[in-house]
Amino acid sequence: MVDEVILLDYWPSMFGVRTRIALEEKNIKFDYIEQDLCNKSALLLEMNPVHKKIPVLIHNGKPVCESLIQVEYIDETWPRENPILPSDPYQRAQARFWGNFIDKMLPGLGKLMWGVKGEEQEAGKEFVEMLKMLESELGDRTYFGGETFGYVDIALIGFYGWFDAFEKYGNFSIEAECPKIIAWAKRCVKRDSVAKSLPDSEKVTELVPELKKKKRVG
Amino acid sequence: MVDEVILLDYWPSMFGVRTRIALEEKNIKFDYIEQDLCNKSALLLEMNPVHKKIPVLIHNGKPVCESLIQVEYIDETWPRENPILPSDPYQRAQARFWGNFIDKMLPGLGKLMWGVKGEEQEAGKEFVEMLKMLESELGDRTYFGGETFGYVDIALIGFYGWFDAFEKYGNFSIEAECPKIIAWAKRCVKRDSVAKSLPDSEKVTELVPELKKKKRVG
Repeated sequence: MVDEVILLDYWPSMFGVRTRIALEEKNIKFDYIEQDLCNKSALLLEMNPVHKKIPVLIHNGKPVCESLIQVEYIDETWPRENPILPSDPYQRAQARFWGNFIDKMLPGLGKLMWGVKGEEQEAGKEFVEMLKMLESELGDRTYFGGETFGYVDIALIGFYGWFDAFEKYGNFSIEAECPKIIAWAKRCVKRDSVAKSLPDSEKVTELVPELKKKKRVG
Repeated sequence: MVDEVILLDYWPSMFGVRTRIALEEKNIKFDYIEQDLCNKSALLLEMNPVHKKIPVLIHNGKPVCESLIQVEYIDETWPRENPILPSDPYQRAQARFWGNFIDKMLPGLGKLMWGVKGEEQEAGKEFVEMLKMLESELGDRTYFGGETFGYVDIALIGFYGWFDAFEKYGNFSIEAECPKIIAWAKRCVKRDSVAKSLPDSEKVTELVPELKKKKRVG
């Protein structure tokens, strides 16, 4: 049977990027269906009735929701090419720990980007602190898992397309604070899977005022 | 080599319970070390320097943090006895989805229990809505995974010791709103692993005023 793989996504999504990269790493052909988040499609509501959010991966008609769960699903379903999670259970637990840590940056990033006036500075500081912890975890390795691009890299690189926007609104320089993270991101972008999947930073930054307006109205 | 397994935990923790149950399901002997969260031990700070939180599972000297990650680690490390996650990748992704969903109930439960006056009612309503979604997912099955007690059961049953406290402070009846969830919880409690691990509801409810005071001071 030929696999039918569909991704319901929204181009600037830092979560959708993860799933796109994982699919590219596995050389899986997929139909990308862009979603209008202000006017959610019947397919999105049907496939993710609980959270009604993108990305949704639909594999042979069956939905998988939540980007990091999709990445694990993709790795388990197509295990041969470019393993994403380490095979050792302890290393796998560590990778999941850092994936979970990266997702914990979100409430703070929400405040930084869409919060009330005055919250940005505190949120920006917190984001930089968390990024520094990630930098310390990365150390001098090529990727988070060592020599192989994998799960934690995929979890974090999704944010890279937003770094310029974070810097602009948070008034800090990620490169000054976390030079190794920027060097790591530049290495990641050299991979086809990442280059193909990441949204353009400039376009993301241009979009932000529009999103801010919508969030204020919504 | 005999495995050395240590659990740093705090008895009423709804997260620690998950890890305790998973270890019991696998018949793994472990040293339980109760933690004073107002005066964190050097061992806790060393083993979970990032979040400084319980539970921490220490296996042969190496820490694993975050309860659901611990449950997966335990299942992967001791796979033979009582499998916790389903073997099929799609079913596994679904189990992870609901585990993640259950963890998303936390910010609301925080407001319900420790939030500012007036927030409780809204938070209580939200909790009941989420519990209803879980009830609908459970349907008429014995456990969330079907006939076998597993990952989602472990993720949710940790909250059961707190149900009385939630009801008292949220002013609702879980049994009236979600009778199938209560029937499911009663089935779970018949398992040795759960009966041994769950904190006593009355003791949890008695503890709450003390915790509220500490949270107000802290």
